[in-house]
Amino acid sequence: MSLERVRSRRPLVHNITNFVVMNTTANALLALGASPIMAHAVEELEDLVRVTDSIVVNIGTLDERWLYSMLKAVQLAKEFGKPVVLDPVGAGATKLRTRAALTLLENSKVSVVKGNFGEVSALLGEVGRTKGVEAMVYEERVAKDLVMRVARRFGTVAAVTGPQDFVSDGRRVYAVKVGSENVSRVIGRVTGLGCVVAALIGAYLAVEDPLRATVAGLATFKTAASRASKEAPYPGSFHVKLYDWLYRVGGDDLIEEIEVFEIEPQGIAEVNSHN
Amino acid sequence: MSLERVRSRRPLVHNITNFVVMNTTANALLALGASPIMAHAVEELEDLVRVTDSIVVNIGTLDERWLYSMLKAVQLAKEFGKPVVLDPVGAGATKLRTRAALTLLENSKVSVVKGNFGEVSALLGEVGRTKGVEAMVYEERVAKDLVMRVARRFGTVAAVTGPQDFVSDGRRVYAVKVGSENVSRVIGRVTGLGCVVAALIGAYLAVEDPLRATVAGLATFKTAASRASKEAPYPGSFHVKLYDWLYRVGGDDLIEEIEVFEIEPQGIAEVNSHN
Amino acid sequence: MSLERVRSRRPLVHNITNFVVMNTTANALLALGASPIMAHAVEELEDLVRVTDSIVVNIGTLDERWLYSMLKAVQLAKEFGKPVVLDPVGAGATKLRTRAALTLLENSKVSVVKGNFGEVSALLGEVGRTKGVEAMVYEERVAKDLVMRVARRFGTVAAVTGPQDFVSDGRRVYAVKVGSENVSRVIGRVTGLGCVVAALIGAYLAVEDPLRATVAGLATFKTAASRASKEAPYPGSFHVKLYDWLYRVGGDDLIEEIEVFEIEPQGIAEVNSHN
Repeated sequence: MSLERVRSRRPLVHNITNFVVMNTTANALLALGASPIMAHAVEELEDLVRVTDSIVVNIGTLDERWLYSMLKAVQLAKEFGKPVVLDPVGAGATKLRTRAALTLLENSKVSVVKGNFGEVSALLGEVGRTKGVEAMVYEERVAKDLVMRVARRFGTVAAVTGPQDFVSDGRRVYAVKVGSENVSRVIGRVTGLGCVVAALIGAYLAVEDPLRATVAGLATFKTAASRASKEAPYPGSFHVKLYDWLYRVGGDDLIEEIEVFEIEPQGIAEVNSHN
Repeated sequence: MSLERVRSRRPLVHNITNFVVMNTTANALLALGASPIMAHAVEELEDLVRVTDSIVVNIGTLDERWLYSMLKAVQLAKEFGKPVVLDPVGAGATKLRTRAALTLLENSKVSVVKGNFGEVSALLGEVGRTKGVEAMVYEERVAKDLVMRVARRFGTVAAVTGPQDFVSDGRRVYAVKVGSENVSRVIGRVTGLGCVVAALIGAYLAVEDPLRATVAGLATFKTAASRASKEAPYPGSFHVKLYDWLYRVGGDDLIEEIEVFEIEPQGIAEVNSHN
Repeated sequence: MSLERVRSRRPLVHNITNFVVMNTTANALLALGASPIMAHAVEELEDLVRVTDSIVVNIGTLDERWLYSMLKAVQLAKEFGKPVVLDPVGAGATKLRTRAALTLLENSKVSVVKGNFGEVSALLGEVGRTKGVEAMVYEERVAKDLVMRVARRFGTVAAVTGPQDFVSDGRRVYAVKVGSENVSRVIGRVTGLGCVVAALIGAYLAVEDPLRATVAGLATFKTAASRASKEAPYPGSFHVKLYDWLYRVGGDDLIEEIEVFEIEPQGIAEVNSHN
């Protein structure tokens, strides 16, 4: 199983990410069992991309100097054949962020792009009623269509997170759903948890193809979050328990907590459930 | 009540703040019920200031590039009529910080300036026995006078935090006092909690005038801190519980924990107490 | 005892450190009882170095602008006679980091250099099987020799951290060992704890000579970590309890948890043990 392969291989995951979540995502990766490195200096990117197992690029707290580092990193990733996951934080909220996300997608080989509904919509030029980074509008009925179109447009795996997550490789669409309803509420009260999902996908990219890595990252996060929210319903304590559960979570927990559906043109076929 | 209005409106609070506390203040705002965004790139400031409800400027870990972003942000705030709270972290400790705080106050329309005793003193050119950012000397007997003078000098609401907080709009002075004595001790053992106060004031500025927003921010913080310290007397656990209580705190908690006095020339009139 | 002197004096510890751990190390220093300040702007370094009690330089998330600040800070430290502890995070992983560490060591008077096995090896040009920042290979059998050679080469106190820590002033070598075996495992699952050790050494440098300060920093960290791990075996909860125990830890705890051996050419003489 992918989770065990991450833990035995301890992949090196190189993050160029925002100031708000650096500590959060490094701790999430360590708790899971991966080896994070945070580095942005252009002078050392080649040394790092050469040895890393995957790269996580996150455009929160962006400025021109960090964007330059990100562009260089994704070009090196293409050269060295390393998988990249892009988290387009704030795309749609500002022109700088939207353009940066598109530039990164168009000038490299991104394996996975993962965002909330507003962010992923912005990649197609569809700016909705976006309000801030954390409070994007989530529209389930169009999210399924959206991931398919983004995946095809950019030749990547695309994921939209929300109460239910949707993932597509451009052909198929999967939905990842957690049993507990309450977990989404508390997830929205802690900063950087979307960024944690991208980082976890980065860890799985070292041991899986992009579609499976994305589903595994989403499922692992939601399982750990669900378990944590049962022990601690308030945001501070929940946040602490989330790291505990990223460390503790096993394959059986995922099977108990998560349902993954393949959504076909004709209907919905459940592919992984505890029922 | 202001707290309920913050929670129902979920105001977008734009923070240009220091590296140490970005995660802390984002989590505090989310726990309270606001929507934080952290961004500093000059290229996207106009897009953000246009839609934000308020702006928090905090000069910790300052350098010239961040100061430039802050100056641009407060000028845009003036243009778009958005309220600004300034946290002059480290004013008085270095000439760079003192000058930066004064430049921000003099070149824009700051609604609220909030600092500890040493920081706020430095705004009047009165550098006291300042030792570091966290360990400023607190002198209650002159703090009341200080907030009045700073409020008048800069045409703003001024607040000095300490075991007892003082707030003035240049005419009146209010004292915000928490019942429990022990809470100040543990507050001093966690970084960024002064910055959290400024961020909470930022959230209230979206729904209240500057004087009321400042009192509400101080009272909310102290209430949550007091409740947290009763559950967890040590700094790591207290810090976690503080987010829990920013989420849990309600109007009744504030009334139980906090006393707000209006201090008049003739004496002290209690305006809000549980007695 | 050193610990009580730190708590009564509350030394000002100036940190130029990486984005990932700024919050972590500031909170660790506050919990212990020191006064941290985080600042990197060249314009304010002289104001700060003049009044600080010690300086912590940490080259994680390095870039050329931060390196320039670090070089200026260590030169000012030499001028003002302030002790410096260097944490060469990632030395050996990239040429930029290795060169930066060597430049800092060779152009100033560093009191203590502390790293993991891979990082300290890199200072002698011995790049081993280095994998990332967190997962350096630890080789106890050569670590003792390594600290002695690094201490002599750079005229500093050198420390290598691992399941057992080794410290040398170039003449003697000490080993710092914690009773509990499990603590190393969970320490490796939280980011920035090596950086916390360097910060604690910085606090002790204000009240002790470099050799004693280094042993005290290592022993304090391991004691607090050991106590925390007994209360909380998973990384999120352990991390929280670590701050609690940095606040709670006393001299008796150190004596109970830690053994410090002086390793002589002829053998091992235990100098501090609970036996």
